[in-house]
Amino acid sequence: MSLSGKHRVVIVGGGFGGLTTAKALRKTPVDITLVDRRNFHLFQPLLYQVATGGLSPGNIAAPLRSIFARQRNVHVVMDEVIGFDLPRRRVLLQEGELAYDSLVVAAGAKTGYFGNDQWAENAPGLKTVEDAIEIRGRVLTAFEEADKLPTPQAREHLLTFVVVGAGPTGVELAGTLAEIARHTLRHDFRIINPAETRIILIDAAPRILMAYAEDLAMNAQKKLMEMGVEVRTQVKIQKVDASGVEVMTAQGVEQIAAANVLWAAGVTASPLAKLLSEATGAPLDRQGRIEVQSDLTLPGHPQVYVIGDMAHFKLPSGQAVPGVAPAAMQQGKYVAKAIQSRFQNITLPPFTYTDLGSMATIGRKAAIAQIGTWKFTGLIAWILWLFIHLIQIVSFESRILVLIQWAWNYLTFSRSARLITQSGYTHGGHLRATHVTNSADNN
Amino acid sequence: MSLSGKHRVVIVGGGFGGLTTAKALRKTPVDITLVDRRNFHLFQPLLYQVATGGLSPGNIAAPLRSIFARQRNVHVVMDEVIGFDLPRRRVLLQEGELAYDSLVVAAGAKTGYFGNDQWAENAPGLKTVEDAIEIRGRVLTAFEEADKLPTPQAREHLLTFVVVGAGPTGVELAGTLAEIARHTLRHDFRIINPAETRIILIDAAPRILMAYAEDLAMNAQKKLMEMGVEVRTQVKIQKVDASGVEVMTAQGVEQIAAANVLWAAGVTASPLAKLLSEATGAPLDRQGRIEVQSDLTLPGHPQVYVIGDMAHFKLPSGQAVPGVAPAAMQQGKYVAKAIQSRFQNITLPPFTYTDLGSMATIGRKAAIAQIGTWKFTGLIAWILWLFIHLIQIVSFESRILVLIQWAWNYLTFSRSARLITQSGYTHGGHLRATHVTNSADNN
Repeated sequence: MSLSGKHRVVIVGGGFGGLTTAKALRKTPVDITLVDRRNFHLFQPLLYQVATGGLSPGNIAAPLRSIFARQRNVHVVMDEVIGFDLPRRRVLLQEGELAYDSLVVAAGAKTGYFGNDQWAENAPGLKTVEDAIEIRGRVLTAFEEADKLPTPQAREHLLTFVVVGAGPTGVELAGTLAEIARHTLRHDFRIINPAETRIILIDAAPRILMAYAEDLAMNAQKKLMEMGVEVRTQVKIQKVDASGVEVMTAQGVEQIAAANVLWAAGVTASPLAKLLSEATGAPLDRQGRIEVQSDLTLPGHPQVYVIGDMAHFKLPSGQAVPGVAPAAMQQGKYVAKAIQSRFQNITLPPFTYTDLGSMATIGRKAAIAQIGTWKFTGLIAWILWLFIHLIQIVSFESRILVLIQWAWNYLTFSRSARLITQSGYTHGGHLRATHVTNSADNN
Repeated sequence: MSLSGKHRVVIVGGGFGGLTTAKALRKTPVDITLVDRRNFHLFQPLLYQVATGGLSPGNIAAPLRSIFARQRNVHVVMDEVIGFDLPRRRVLLQEGELAYDSLVVAAGAKTGYFGNDQWAENAPGLKTVEDAIEIRGRVLTAFEEADKLPTPQAREHLLTFVVVGAGPTGVELAGTLAEIARHTLRHDFRIINPAETRIILIDAAPRILMAYAEDLAMNAQKKLMEMGVEVRTQVKIQKVDASGVEVMTAQGVEQIAAANVLWAAGVTASPLAKLLSEATGAPLDRQGRIEVQSDLTLPGHPQVYVIGDMAHFKLPSGQAVPGVAPAAMQQGKYVAKAIQSRFQNITLPPFTYTDLGSMATIGRKAAIAQIGTWKFTGLIAWILWLFIHLIQIVSFESRILVLIQWAWNYLTFSRSARLITQSGYTHGGHLRATHVTNSADNN
C-alpha cells in the first residue's frame, strides 16, 4: 500500500508492454510508477526508417511524460533498474528503490550476437535510437568515402552492404538500402554510381522470413531480387570483422568483403530476465527469456508479472509467443485485468495469445501480410502495412506528421533526415565504431 | 583550369555563404567543388528549436548532395580543410587536395569563450546539431533528476538555468526555456512544479539585444520578464564551473548556483581565418575574423574570397558587417558575380552591404523586428519572423513540414522531439559533459 493507501504497481519498461499495462489501468484506483532508463517510448517497428534517413528519431519517439501527462495515477521515473528484492517487494534502482504490491517487468530485448559480442563493433544492430543514428552515419559515410576513390574496384569494399538475418527487420533494411542506392541518391554523386552498391541479405535458414508462409516469403524474395538485393540463404556467419564477413555455405568457407555489416539476426532478452530467473528458479530459454506461468507470473511470486520480449510464454503448440508488439500489448492488457481482478476477488483464466497476423514491408509499394488464413502481397499488403502502423503510431501520440512525412518522401523519393552526426565514422581500410565514453557513472 | 577546361571554383563551407555562392553560379560554365566536413546544410537560426525539443535535427538540416543533386556543375566533397597552399592554388584536405582558380572560404564561426575554453564543458554553446542535442539532453535531464529530489531547496540547483549572452540566440533560448517550464511540461511531473524553474539571462552590456533599437530591446525585456525570465544586465561572467557561475556586478562578486549554464555570449571565427591571415598578412579582429578588401578578396590574392561569419568587412561606419545569414548570402551573391565578371573582363564595384533589418523571437506570439526605420513588436513581429524564416527554410528544400510541425506545436503547446539520447548527462551534485571520443583519426 502506498501512503495514499492505494495498491502500488511498478512497471519496468516503457515499451509496448509497459505502456499498454499502464494505460489499461487508467481508471483503476492504483498508484503506478513507470520506470525506464529512457525518457521516451520508441516505436521500434519504424526504427529502420530512421536508420535509412526517412524519418527523424523525434518522429517515432514519444516522451513518456507526455503520454501520461493527463493520466494522474502514473508517475514516470527515469532511472535504471539494477535488481530486485522480491522478498521485500522492492525494485532496486541506480538511485534508490521502489516498493510495489504488483510488479510488471517489461524490459524488452537487445541485439544478440549468439555469444559473439565482439562482432557488435563491426555489425551494429538496430534496437535503439543511437543504433539507428549509428547505422545512418555508417551507410551515408560509406557513400561519401567511396565518392573519393578513383575506380569501381577501389570502391567495392565500401559499397558492399551485408545484412545479416532475413527476418522482417533484415528484409526491411535490405529493401530500403536498395531504394536509397537506386533512387534517393541517384542524382547525388558525380563520381560513383550508387547503383554500384551491392546489398547482400544473408540467413542461415533455408529461406527468408521463416515466420511467414512459404509463398509469401518467396514473393518477398522475388521482389527483393528485382530491387537488386542478393538473397543468400543457408549461409552461416562464422566471423565478422572490419574487412567483412566469413560465412559457411554448402560449398565451404567464403569471405565477403564489405565495409558495412548490419546485424538483424537476433535479439536477446534484457539481463533483468536472468536476475529474475536466479531469484525465482524460473528457467531461461536460449534467447535469455524467462519462462512465465499461465497467468504471466513467476513461480512462487503471484504478484510479479513478466511480459513482452523478455518473457517466454509457452503456447499450446509448444512454441513461445513471438516477440512482437501485439503480443506484448495483449499481455499488458491481461496483466492490467489480473491486477484489477485482485480487487474483485475473482480469478482470471490463463492468458491466451491471439495471433493478429504479421506483415513485413520490402520497399515502396511492396509488402507481405498474413492475417489468419488471408494472405496479401504487393501494393495491397503495403497499404495495409502502412495503415496499421500509422493507426498504431497515431494512437500513442498525435503523430499525424509521420503520415505527412511519409507521403512527402513517397511522392518525392526523398529522404531528408540524412544527417551524418557525431563524426566517428571512417572507412579508411576498415570501419571503426564510434565510442561514446561517459564519465557519468561514478558520482 | 580543370580537365574539362573550365574555371575551377572551390568553395569551403556549406553554410549560407557557400551555398549562396554555389547556387548563384548555377548557370556559369565553371566547375564547382563544395567542401564541407558535414554532409548537410544547417539552418542555424532555428537551432534553438532543436535544443528545446520543438524540432528534430532533420527538420532544419538539408543534405548538401540533395540541394545540388540537379545542379550538375557542383561536386560535393565531405572532408575537412586542414590548410591552404596559396602559391600553388591548392586547398589541403584531410584526404588529398583540391586545385582552384577561384577560392571562396566561408567556413563560418564556432562558439567562443573569450579565451576560457575550459568553460565549454559546463556551458555548452549552440552552433552544431550535436550542441543542440547536448543542450536538449541536459535541460530535460535536469527536470528528470529534479523530480527525484524531495524538497524545492534540493531541486533549486538543478532547476536554475543561466543563459549567458542576451543577443538574439540568448533571448530565444531563455524565452523558450520559460515556455517549456510553464507550458510544455506543466502536466508532466508529479513531484516538481516546473514553474519552480529559475531562468536567468545574463549580459555584460547595459541592456539586452544591443544590436537593436533601445525601445525594441526594452519591449523584449518586458515580455521576457512577464514570462518569468530574470534579466540581469551589466553582469560579467568571471567563472563557470559545475556549481554554476561566478559573476561580477556593480555590487561585487556573486555566485549563482545553477546546474545548467548555456552559452550564447559569443562566437569566434573558424581557425581557417588564422591560417589565411598567416599566409597573406591580412589582420584578424578580436573575434578571429580576417579583414577582407572592398571586393571581399585577400590582399595580394585577387582569386581568394572570404565571406560570411569568418570575414571582417569594414562598413563606411567603421563597424564590421554583422555575422548574420543575410550578410553571408549577399556576399555569396557578390562573389558569384565577381567570378562571372572575370569572363567578361569587367571590374565589379566594391561590395556593399544592405541591412535588411533584424528580428528576434521571444516566445509564442512575441518577437521584435526592425526593418529600416520600421519597428514591430508582439504578434505582428512574430508572424513576420515566422514568415521570413519559413520562406527561407522552404527555399533550401521543400521544408513545408517544418511549417506543419510548428503549427502543430503551436496549437497543442507540445514539443514532441524531447528525446534524451546518448545518455551521458548526470547532475549528481555537478554537471558532467558527455565526452565523445573517437578513435577514428589514426588510420
